[in-house]
Amino acid sequence: MSGEEAPTQQLQPEQEKKPDEPPPAAPEPPLESEGSPAAAAEEKELPCRALVLTGYGGYDKVKMQVKALSPSQLKAGEVLLRVKACGLNFAELLGRQGLYELLPAPPVTMGMEGCGVIEACGEDVKDRKVGDRVITLARSGMWQEVVIVPADRTFLMPEQMSFEEGAALSVNYLTAYMMLFEMANLRPGKSVLIHMAAGGVGVAVTQLCRTVQDVTVFGTASASKHETISQGGVTHPIDYRTKDYVEEIRKISPKGVDIVLDPLGGSDTQKGFSLLKPLGSLIVFGAANCVTGQKKNLLAMAKTWYHQLSLSALKLMQVNKAVGGFHLGYIPDEELISRTMVMLLELYKQGKIKPRIDSCYHFEEVTDAMKRMHERQNIGKVILLPEAKKKEEEKPKSDPEPVESEEKTGAAVSEQKEEVAEEVQAEKD
Amino acid sequence: MSGEEAPTQQLQPEQEKKPDEPPPAAPEPPLESEGSPAAAAEEKELPCRALVLTGYGGYDKVKMQVKALSPSQLKAGEVLLRVKACGLNFAELLGRQGLYELLPAPPVTMGMEGCGVIEACGEDVKDRKVGDRVITLARSGMWQEVVIVPADRTFLMPEQMSFEEGAALSVNYLTAYMMLFEMANLRPGKSVLIHMAAGGVGVAVTQLCRTVQDVTVFGTASASKHETISQGGVTHPIDYRTKDYVEEIRKISPKGVDIVLDPLGGSDTQKGFSLLKPLGSLIVFGAANCVTGQKKNLLAMAKTWYHQLSLSALKLMQVNKAVGGFHLGYIPDEELISRTMVMLLELYKQGKIKPRIDSCYHFEEVTDAMKRMHERQNIGKVILLPEAKKKEEEKPKSDPEPVESEEKTGAAVSEQKEEVAEEVQAEKD
Repeated sequence: MSGEEAPTQQLQPEQEKKPDEPPPAAPEPPLESEGSPAAAAEEKELPCRALVLTGYGGYDKVKMQVKALSPSQLKAGEVLLRVKACGLNFAELLGRQGLYELLPAPPVTMGMEGCGVIEACGEDVKDRKVGDRVITLARSGMWQEVVIVPADRTFLMPEQMSFEEGAALSVNYLTAYMMLFEMANLRPGKSVLIHMAAGGVGVAVTQLCRTVQDVTVFGTASASKHETISQGGVTHPIDYRTKDYVEEIRKISPKGVDIVLDPLGGSDTQKGFSLLKPLGSLIVFGAANCVTGQKKNLLAMAKTWYHQLSLSALKLMQVNKAVGGFHLGYIPDEELISRTMVMLLELYKQGKIKPRIDSCYHFEEVTDAMKRMHERQNIGKVILLPEAKKKEEEKPKSDPEPVESEEKTGAAVSEQKEEVAEEVQAEKD
Repeated sequence: MSGEEAPTQQLQPEQEKKPDEPPPAAPEPPLESEGSPAAAAEEKELPCRALVLTGYGGYDKVKMQVKALSPSQLKAGEVLLRVKACGLNFAELLGRQGLYELLPAPPVTMGMEGCGVIEACGEDVKDRKVGDRVITLARSGMWQEVVIVPADRTFLMPEQMSFEEGAALSVNYLTAYMMLFEMANLRPGKSVLIHMAAGGVGVAVTQLCRTVQDVTVFGTASASKHETISQGGVTHPIDYRTKDYVEEIRKISPKGVDIVLDPLGGSDTQKGFSLLKPLGSLIVFGAANCVTGQKKNLLAMAKTWYHQLSLSALKLMQVNKAVGGFHLGYIPDEELISRTMVMLLELYKQGKIKPRIDSCYHFEEVTDAMKRMHERQNIGKVILLPEAKKKEEEKPKSDPEPVESEEKTGAAVSEQKEEVAEEVQAEKD
C-alpha cells in the first residue's frame, strides 16, 4: 500500500453526512446473502452508527450520528467489516481539541483502531473471507458500526482473542514495540522509564519489557494504581503526584536509566534526558502536557512548547545520548506495520502479551469514555462498542467470544469516582 | 575504576618535563631483573622518548622530547609498559589545534592508545606479569616510550596480533562497535552510511557491519580508495569530491538509509538526517569539518557550528527519527569499555575483524604521520612507533611478532603523493 491517505478517505463517506442529528439507530439489517456478497449488497444502504467530531472543543463535540453506508462502495481488494469494538487513544483527545494534525478537519468520523467481522469481500480479495474476525487500523474513521477497509490492512485475530483485546492491540502495542525494539534497542539488563505506566501504551511497554531478560521498569502513575501496575511488571512504580520522579529514580539507580519513553513533552522531556545513562535513548512520543482542560489550553501548549527539549548535535556528543521521536501516524511503511502486527499477534498467541482492558463504553457513552482517559482514571485500555446499549446483563449476541470478566462497562467510571479528577497535568508543571 | 581523570594523570608525569629540547634519545637500558621488578627499578630513571604538544597550532607544535620516568612511581595496581606502537587519531589533529577539550593544556604528551610489553608490575597486580603483551588506552599520554598504567586498563593481546594491529584496535573499534550496536541497533537487513570510509573508524565500521547479515554499507571516500574499501566490505563507495552523496544514495536506495554515522558535523549532519529512513538513527561522532588547514580555522568552525543540526523533540516525532552523539572520551563507564574490548578481541581471534594498517611512522616522523591523516591519504590506521628510526631493513629485535608485510613505514606517504592533498573539506561546504 502506497497511499497514506487512502484508508482515511475510504473510511470517511462524509459526503453522506446529514447535518441534523439523525433519529436513533435502527437495528442494522444483516446482509442477506453471504454467497455473493457484492451482488447482495448492491442496492441496500446500511444504516451505520458513527462517532463524529463536529468541531474542535470539549466532550460535546463528539456526537453519535447515523450515517448511511452503501456496500456498493466496496472496491476490489476491500472488505466490509462490522466493527465490534474500537480503541480510544490519547490522540483522539488531542484531535478533539484540534491538536492532532493527522486528523482531517471536522466533520470527521474519529477512531484509529478497531476489530470486527468481515461481512463482505470485494473482488480480488483472496486471503480473507466472510466471517473472518480481523483487526484493522487507520488514521481515522474506525468509530463506526460498519467500515470498508483494504483487505491487506486487516489482521486475522487469534481464536482466543476477544474483540475488546483486538481493539486494544494495534496502536498501543505497535507504538510500544517499535519504540523499544526498532528505535531504543532494548536488550537484557537494561532499564526503562515509562510515564503514564497505567495507560494503554504504558501497559504494552511493561509487557514487552518482560519479554526481555532482566529489564528494570520504572513507571509513573498515581498511587492508587501502583498495586496493579506492579503486578503487571513495573519494577518501581513512582507516584509523580506526590514525589519528584527524578529524585526517586536517582535514589534507586544513581546512574539513571537506559531508555526513557516520554508521552508528556515539555519539561518532562528535559528531565527524562537528564536521567539518561551514557549511550541511553530518550524517545518522545506525545505531548500529553498540552492537554489540561477539556478544551485547547493555549497556556499549557505554550509552556510545553517553551520547555521542550532542543538539542544540537555537538551537545549530544558531549553526553553520549540519543533523542528520538516516535509517532505511529507518521510511519509511511505499511509493510513494517504489517510485519510488526504479525509479530505482536504471535506474542499474544504465546501468552507473552495480553491487552489489559480498563473499561468498555457504548458509543452513546463516549463522553464518559473520554472523561475516564482525560482524568487518568484508566488502568489499561478504554474500549468503545458500536453496538447500541442494551440492559447491562445482556451479552451481545453476535459476539462469538465472551466478554472477559475483568472488563467493565460504563459503570467503571463511577467505581473510581473517588479518585481525584482534577487537572493532573497542571500540578506537574 | 571510578576516576575518569586517573589514567590521564598517571600517564603524564609532566612535572618532570624539561623545558628545553633534550639531547637525542640514548638507547634505553633494559630493566635488569625481571624476577623482582619493583626492587630492581627502584633507583633508575628511564629515559623516555615522548611526543609532546608544546602549544596549539600547526604540525611543528608536536615535538619529540626525552623525559625521565622513574619506575619507583609505579604504584599498587599499576604496570610499567614499554610501548611498541601507538595509534594516531583524528582527535589528536583537533587537539593540536586546541579543538579537543579533553586534552589537557600544553605542554602535554599526546596519544590515546598504544600497546607494548609489560616490564614491571606494581604491588597487587595479579593477572598481569612481566612480558605480557597488552593494549591500553587513555585520554592522553600514550605517545611515549614507557608508560605507567593501571593494570585493569590493559588488555591481553591475542598471540597472532601484531603490535601495529594492537595499537589500531581500541579507539576506532570501540567507537565503531558502540555506535553500531549500543546506540544504533544494527540488525540484519539494515543499511549504513559511513563518511571517511577509508579512515580508521570507517574500516572498523565496515568490518563490524560484515558481522551482521545483509547489511548494506554506503561509504564516502575519494575515488582512488574505492577499490580497497570495496574489497573491505563497502557495498557502495561514493566519491564525495565529484558527486553529491545524497543524490547518489537516493539513486540506489530512494527511501534512504537506516543508520548514518557522521564524523563531519555541520551541513553534513543535516544531509545525513535528511537521508534517514523512518525509525532511522543518525549518530554524530566528530566535527572533522572544523579542521581545514594546519591551524585552527575560525571560519570553518563558525560554518560547522552554524550549520550543525539542531532539533526539537516535536520535530523528531513528526519524522520518526533519532539523533545521537558519540564520543568515546566522554564514556565514564570503564566496565563498559572493558567489556567491549574483550568482545572485540574475541572477534579478532575469530578472524571477523582485523585492523587495517595504512602506514607506520617513527616518533621523529610524526609530522609526516599527521600530514597523511590530515590530507586524507590514509586507508586504515596511521601508526606511530616509539622506537628510534634505524635503517629500514632492520626489524626491531624486541618485537616477538613479525611486522606484517602489508604495513608500510614512512615511505608510504611518498607512494601516494600524487593524490590531491588540498583542503578537501573546503570543497565540501
